[in-house]
Formats: sequence, C-alpha cells, structure tokens
Amino acid sequence: MDSSQFRQAAHSAIDEIAQYYDTIAERPVLPNVAPGYLRPLLPDGPPEEGEEWTEIQADIDRVIMPGITHWQSPKYMAFYPCNSSFPAMLGDMYSGAFNAAAFNWICSPAVTELETVVMDWIAKLVGLPDCYLSKGEGGGIIQGTASEVVVTAIVAARERIIRRRLADMPEGEEKLDRMAEMRGKLVALGSEHAHSATQKGAIIAGTRFRTVPAPEETGFRVTGAALRKTIEELRVKGLEPFYFTATLGSTAHCAVDDLEGIAEVAKENPDVWIHVDAAYAGSALVCPEYQHFCKPMEHYDSFNFNLHKWLLVNFDCSAFFIKRRRDLIDTYSIAPSFLRNEFTDKGLVTDYRDWQIPLGRRFRSLKVWFVLRSYGVNGLRAFIRNHVSLGEYFEGLIRSRPDLFTVVTKAAFALTTFHVNPRPGSPVSTSANAPNPAHEAYLNDFTNSAEAEYRASANEITKHVYETINAQREFFLTSAVTGGIYIIRVVSATPNAEEKYLKQLFELLVKTAEEGLAVPSADIPTRK
Amino acid sequence: MDSSQFRQAAHSAIDEIAQYYDTIAERPVLPNVAPGYLRPLLPDGPPEEGEEWTEIQADIDRVIMPGITHWQSPKYMAFYPCNSSFPAMLGDMYSGAFNAAAFNWICSPAVTELETVVMDWIAKLVGLPDCYLSKGEGGGIIQGTASEVVVTAIVAARERIIRRRLADMPEGEEKLDRMAEMRGKLVALGSEHAHSATQKGAIIAGTRFRTVPAPEETGFRVTGAALRKTIEELRVKGLEPFYFTATLGSTAHCAVDDLEGIAEVAKENPDVWIHVDAAYAGSALVCPEYQHFCKPMEHYDSFNFNLHKWLLVNFDCSAFFIKRRRDLIDTYSIAPSFLRNEFTDKGLVTDYRDWQIPLGRRFRSLKVWFVLRSYGVNGLRAFIRNHVSLGEYFEGLIRSRPDLFTVVTKAAFALTTFHVNPRPGSPVSTSANAPNPAHEAYLNDFTNSAEAEYRASANEITKHVYETINAQREFFLTSAVTGGIYIIRVVSATPNAEEKYLKQLFELLVKTAEEGLAVPSADIPTRK
Repeated sequence: MDSSQFRQAAHSAIDEIAQYYDTIAERPVLPNVAPGYLRPLLPDGPPEEGEEWTEIQADIDRVIMPGITHWQSPKYMAFYPCNSSFPAMLGDMYSGAFNAAAFNWICSPAVTELETVVMDWIAKLVGLPDCYLSKGEGGGIIQGTASEVVVTAIVAARERIIRRRLADMPEGEEKLDRMAEMRGKLVALGSEHAHSATQKGAIIAGTRFRTVPAPEETGFRVTGAALRKTIEELRVKGLEPFYFTATLGSTAHCAVDDLEGIAEVAKENPDVWIHVDAAYAGSALVCPEYQHFCKPMEHYDSFNFNLHKWLLVNFDCSAFFIKRRRDLIDTYSIAPSFLRNEFTDKGLVTDYRDWQIPLGRRFRSLKVWFVLRSYGVNGLRAFIRNHVSLGEYFEGLIRSRPDLFTVVTKAAFALTTFHVNPRPGSPVSTSANAPNPAHEAYLNDFTNSAEAEYRASANEITKHVYETINAQREFFLTSAVTGGIYIIRVVSATPNAEEKYLKQLFELLVKTAEEGLAVPSADIPTRK
Repeated sequence: MDSSQFRQAAHSAIDEIAQYYDTIAERPVLPNVAPGYLRPLLPDGPPEEGEEWTEIQADIDRVIMPGITHWQSPKYMAFYPCNSSFPAMLGDMYSGAFNAAAFNWICSPAVTELETVVMDWIAKLVGLPDCYLSKGEGGGIIQGTASEVVVTAIVAARERIIRRRLADMPEGEEKLDRMAEMRGKLVALGSEHAHSATQKGAIIAGTRFRTVPAPEETGFRVTGAALRKTIEELRVKGLEPFYFTATLGSTAHCAVDDLEGIAEVAKENPDVWIHVDAAYAGSALVCPEYQHFCKPMEHYDSFNFNLHKWLLVNFDCSAFFIKRRRDLIDTYSIAPSFLRNEFTDKGLVTDYRDWQIPLGRRFRSLKVWFVLRSYGVNGLRAFIRNHVSLGEYFEGLIRSRPDLFTVVTKAAFALTTFHVNPRPGSPVSTSANAPNPAHEAYLNDFTNSAEAEYRASANEITKHVYETINAQREFFLTSAVTGGIYIIRVVSATPNAEEKYLKQLFELLVKTAEEGLAVPSADIPTRK
C-alpha cells in the first residue's frame, strides 16, 4: 500500500468510523454471537499474495461488526465506561505515524517531554498536591491500565522497604538471603471492596495479600481505624504490611475510602506505601467540588486514575502520579550499554522506562493533549457534571417505585446500585433499606430465618431481571454480589448518554420486574 | 468535535501523515533539540475553553515535529527497527473506533476471537511446533513488548515450580511460609548477552538473577553445556534455577543461542521454564530458510517475537506463544463476581486477561490481520529477504576497507557490527579479527600490554566516529561495548531501506574515520 492508496483507504475508513458513531445508538449494545462464531468466517491462514484494501475493509462488516460490544453506545451502562473521543482518535493517528519504541529521550524527545508537560497539566487540573508535579521530586507517567499501575507500585513498595531496612548491609549473597527472607514476610493490603488488581498484583510481586474490612456500616469504606487495626494484627503475627491500595470509587459501589483517616495511618507508618486507586472516579476530580479528596494525598506515595474510563481519552491511558520518583527508579532502572546516552547519563532527561515494567513506550500523551485542548477545562467539567446529574436522575426513577426496587447505594459518580424487591408474600426484611454485610454468613447459617428468606427471594428475582435485560441485548448492565446481596449496577456515562435512555431502561426494568414477580418462582428460567 | 468535524479533521490529518511519509527520507533522522525544548512552547495548563482543531493541528508542526526521531526513515539504522505500515495504521484506527477495555469475551467477542485466530496464523507462518496452537493445550496472545512478555513468563515460571513442589501441602499459613522460603532460593537465568529485560524481570519477580556465559569463542551464544554447567553450579550452592531466557537474536550482535543443545537441557530439567526471546530476529522465521530454529522449541515452554519490530505491525505488538496455557492461567487468573459471566464460567471462551499482568486489553489483532492480508505470505518473505540482502551488502562495503574497519560480527538478520581500526603506529592486535571476551579484564589488568593499547586506541576512534556521525543527525546508529570492545551496530531494515542509503553511510564512515585518524588522538573532541 503506497501513500496515495493509504490516503484513499484511510479516507474511506474515516467515513465508515464517523458513520458508525452516527448510528451507534440504534444498534443493540450487545452482539448476537455464540462463542466460536468468528473462526469459521476466516480461512486457515494468511493469503499467499497480498489483498486489496477494499476486500479487507469489507470484512469489517462481515466478520468484526457482528462480534462488537458497543462500549460507546448510550445504552452501554455496564462495568464502568471506556469512553472514546474524536480528538483522542486523532492523537492516536499521529502517534501511529510517528511509530517508535520510545524507551528513552533520544528515541523521540517529543514523546518524553510532552508526557511530562501534560501530566503536570493533569495534576493541576485535578488538584493534586504540588508534591506530584515534575518540578520537585515527583511526577506523572502514562501507563496502560490501573492494574498495571498497581503492580508497578506494589513491586516498588516491596523493594523500597527492603532497601530501607537493609541499607547498611554490604552487597553479596548474605544480603540476597536476607532480602529473600524479608520478602517472605511482606503483606500487601487492600479494601475487601478494592479491585482484584491488588490481589493479582500481590501474586505477581510474590507477597502475601490481606483484605481490610469495609462493611456496610461505614458505607463500604475502609476507615483509618480499620487499616490501623489490620496492620497491627499482622505485625503481632510477625508479618510486615508494606503496601495498601486506598480506593477512590470502588468497583461494585463507587465507595471512597476514608482518605483523611488513612492519611493519619500513613504518617504513623512511613514504610507502608499508600497508593490511591481512583481508576474510574478520579476523572470527577476535574470538578472543584470533588477536589477535597486530593488534600490528604500529600501524605500518600502515589495515585492513579484512568483517563480512558471517564475522561474521553481512548484506551489505554492510566495517569500514574508518584511523590518521589526515585521510589520507582531505584527499583526499575537498569542501564546496559546499548541504552546509555549522553542525555540520560547527565540526568538531564526523564527516562520513563525506569518508572515502569516494560521497556518500550507509545506516544500516548498526544491523545491526552488533544482531548484537554479540544474540550478545555470547562468542557470537561460540564461533561462530568452531566453524568453525575444523570445518575441522580436514575436514582430518582428507582426510588419512585419503592414497591419494586430498593436502592443499595445512592448515585455516586453516576453509579447507582439497587436490587429488585422479593415477590409479595415474602417476609419483610429487617434491613431492606440497609443491606447488612453479614448477609452472606446469615444466608449460610440461618437458612430458615425470615431475613435469609427475604434475601434469597430478592436475589433470585434481581438476578432474573438482570439476566433477562442483558439477554435482550438492547442495554448492557452489570451485576455484583456483595455481602450476600445480588445487586444491579447502572452507570450511564458514555459521551452520548441522555435521560431518555435511562428512562427507557427504567421502563424495561419495571416491566421485567413486574412480569417476573407475576409468575411463580419455579417458572423463572435460570441461566447459568 | 462532532462527527462531521471529525471527518474533516481526520481527512486533514491523514493527508499530513501521508505527506510526512512521502518526505521522510529528506529529513535529518535525529532531531535538533536540547533537553527541555518543549515546555517553553506550551502554556502552563490546559485552556479554559476548548480550541478548534486547526489550532491544535498547527502545533504538530510547531511543537512536536522538531522533537521527533524519525524511526521510519531509511537513514534510521539504530537499535532495531520499529516498523510501521499503512495497513497497521488502518487497523489501529478501527481499534480506536471500537474502543473498549476488552478484558473478557463478552466485552467484545471479536477482540478475543480474532486474536486467537491470527495468533494461530502467525504460529503456522513462522513454523512453530503444533503445541503452540490454540487447538491443543497452548496458544498465542498479543502483549505489548518483549520485556512485558519476559516478566509474564518469569512470574508464571516462579509460581509453577512452587505449585509443583508444594502440590501436596494443604492451603494455609504454613504453606505460605514454605512458598516464601522457596521463592527466596529461585534463580532466573539469561545469556550474558540477553536483553536486560530478563534481569529486570527477575527484579520484578523478586528472584535472583545470574548470567550464563556466552563468549566470543561460541559466537556470543549460550550453549547447552554452558547452561547445564550454570544450573549445576547453582544447585550445588543450594539455589534453584527455575527459568532461562534463550535468545534468538541478541541485542548487541543478533547472536542465536544453541537452541538444540538447550533443548536437551530442557528435557533434563522439566521444572526450568525455557522461554525463547526472538524479539527482533523472530520476524525472519516467516522465511522457511530460518524455520529450523523452531524445531527445538517443542521442548521449550514459551516463545515471543515483536511484530512491531520487523514485521510491519505498528508498536506495540509482541506475539507470545505458550505451550501449556494453564501455566499462565494458574498464576494470573482471579475471578471476582463482577468479572464472572456465563461464557467464562462454562469454559467456552478464552479470557486473555488470565494470560497477562494487566486486566484491560486493546484490539491489537486488527492491525496484525490487516498486515498479514495486505502483504500476504510472499510479500512478508520478500520484505525480510530484502533487508537480509542489504545487511550482506553493507558487510561487503565494510570489508572492502580492511585498512579502516574490522567486522566484529558478520551480517546476521540484517545487522552488522564492526569497529574502526586504531591509528597507524598502534600495536598490531593479536586478535584484531577475533575479539576476545576477556578484553575488558585485560584492559583493566594489563594496561601496558600491546593488546590493551590496540584496544584502547580502536575504542577511542570508534567512539569518535560513532559520535561524530550521530551528532550530524543525518543517520542514526547505535554503539555497544561488549567484552571490552566498542562496536558500531548498523541495521538497515525500515520499510524504505535501500542500498543507496547504506552506500551514503559507508562513505560518511570512511570520511569520518579518515579524518579522525589523520589528527592526533588528543585533538579528538570527547563527548560525554
């Protein structure tokens, strides 16, 4: 394909992409394919001779489109959003054109330098304390995903505590033995509602992992007291807590840990690395009304949020801020001769490869820069506030039918969670409006109690409603089970989200719940 | 930006990108900027109100282009290439349009299923043994970079040996203690010429790391005997080697380890995970004349190469093949309730998130599919063979001036390494054409010897020539120091590489070397 063929092919692709966005709301959000649908549509291997672009492009519609889940649809309300935007796509186009494995400054100075500048822009935009700016000892880096960031932080935290404790030991076998012994005692911590990335990160780092309780009484939040208690209990057992993920917007409920209380624990325990994972909700910090959450972070070690979730930068783009960049570099820096150059050696430039696990890097700051400039600060704030309002609107709809639905957690960062009430005749819950974190044990231990019967019945009908709606493919929702309670999560935060789609969903929820409640439990089909 | 503004902006961006490629050979490959050039060109933060695309696009030329290293230039001959192609860019455009954090099958079935199919295509194309195909117990996954793959393999290897050894122990604190103790004894291995990714991977995994000797006598290759000896020596010390990176194309010389000999060691040591890192040279396996390297891999555990280096797929795209996918899943799988769905639970679909460190995934198989189809098998083979021929052509040029240059390693996978001969009057090297791996020690220990004097003089002038050429920014080369020898590496393997550029470089090398040799050593400016 030469450059004039590329012009033609790319113009045609752009038109198809624009057309796709123009019609996305009309498509069922979930695809209608069974596992294995794609292989029979393709030959067994690549063609011997090259094919024309027109043949290839035609296969987008034939092979790919039927298997796409439309994350940009306004009817996508599952997980958390993964929003794209046209300016970000333009950024990725240029990034692809300047294609490079930009592992150090000389590999393309613009890649490193634009990243440092836009990360400082972001830090100021969300109101992070100054210690996270590049002008001092900190700074920001773009990594792929929050899960990658969490591993990066856990491993750096593991090595930091070992370096500090063994600073006086001479290098050698004896020190390696002592380091190994120390690693064996380390424990990484996260809320019981933290994203599974922390647990997986601990596996990768080869350390132990424990959860910190975050019961319903505290709004599913880890308090400073709970964290302190867990740390003390572990120390009594001879173990060494070295890392904690504080959550700003938990996966199931979008709960925010007690960041101020945790800051006190951080001050008391300088060797425990505190990382704030704000993967989804962090984007809301562009609005001043949320920035009070950032104040305590001056006592923490690192912070990240995914611009690819709620801030219109195409996947992947997780902004990772670190208070002392040396905490990363001391773990991740290796400088073999082929990577050495005068600029790095003189310490004049940032080599982001030493702040991360992989070596090579893409030019991701371009898309961030384009988005920040295209929307402007006010545009981004309006974008977030619109979704927050939509969340409140939806919570209101759910509350308008207390006969059918119970709100479990009220609208937070555009997410509402609720369950369907059990069929008439079920016992009245003693805590119908206040789910109890002990429910799971309750269900197991007291299966004859009224409370357990209520919960079992509610869970059954909620699951039925959830599965029925997803099976229709018109809307895509997610469920979760926390504390024994089966909940439906609704978060409508795609760029083209509107009240009318939430209204449509609400009507479908009412209809599905009413129909489900009208038939005997035994007639409800179960999906596995 | 609405979809019609996007059409207009994107068409304009495409034209600019096509124009960039049409003129790339005329640009100096290295940028003429000093560290810190970019920040003064930008404001201190994002604008309050959004800007028009025309303003943003104009800044590509003003802010970005001056700081770009042109990796796609035919005068880029540094590191290894990172080749882009127009079909791959089209793939990334659609991937951006279908933007999703595709962490499991239901998140977009096409993302998972196309990846499985094209990875099978690649496995067949490069002649991997059938055990790496998805139809059995193996399969392929796209990860970002070779360094990410190597960490993924090391951590999985670490957990595999522990699982095997402690299979009979009941879960609990005692097992956790025993696991920690075992991890403390583990040693990851790589050639002394292996990419630093293995050493960094061992740091991340929290294990020890040792190199296996690969001296010049064996062509900088690790032999089966050397690996066996290292394993045995470590066991005598009570340590447990659990992982080895075999290199197919080392960073400095593009040397290939003794893959058949290593296969014998693999058979004797089933608990030592053998991974083949073919990051750059692996692309040559599309040509049948190189596929004999793949045969021994049936005895190995995993293999990867970077399609983003030499196979025209834009960065990033590392193809990682695994013989027993359970070896990854048993380490990386965590299934919290919000990630569960009927398809995964039934085992009908592949959840690639369980084969990797991060959770989310991009739709990278699209660009691979487009490249394979646009070039066809024959097109890709012709592409590789052209570069291999260019390498031989360049080696011939260097050999045509034995008065000035000495080939250190002959053209291998398009890479030639050489040094400049010392100034007249220097002692004659006893091993001028056969560099000695003991040189570094030699230089340190016998600084008065003739050999050391020869080497010091050759290193000085070679460094001078290398730095002078890069400082002119017309060509971009890399140097390396191995075994005390300062070498210049030349690899011309970008899509528009041609003999004429190698001829130009050669003439510049001759001129620079002659000028450098004509002046006294003291007059050569040293760069730091």
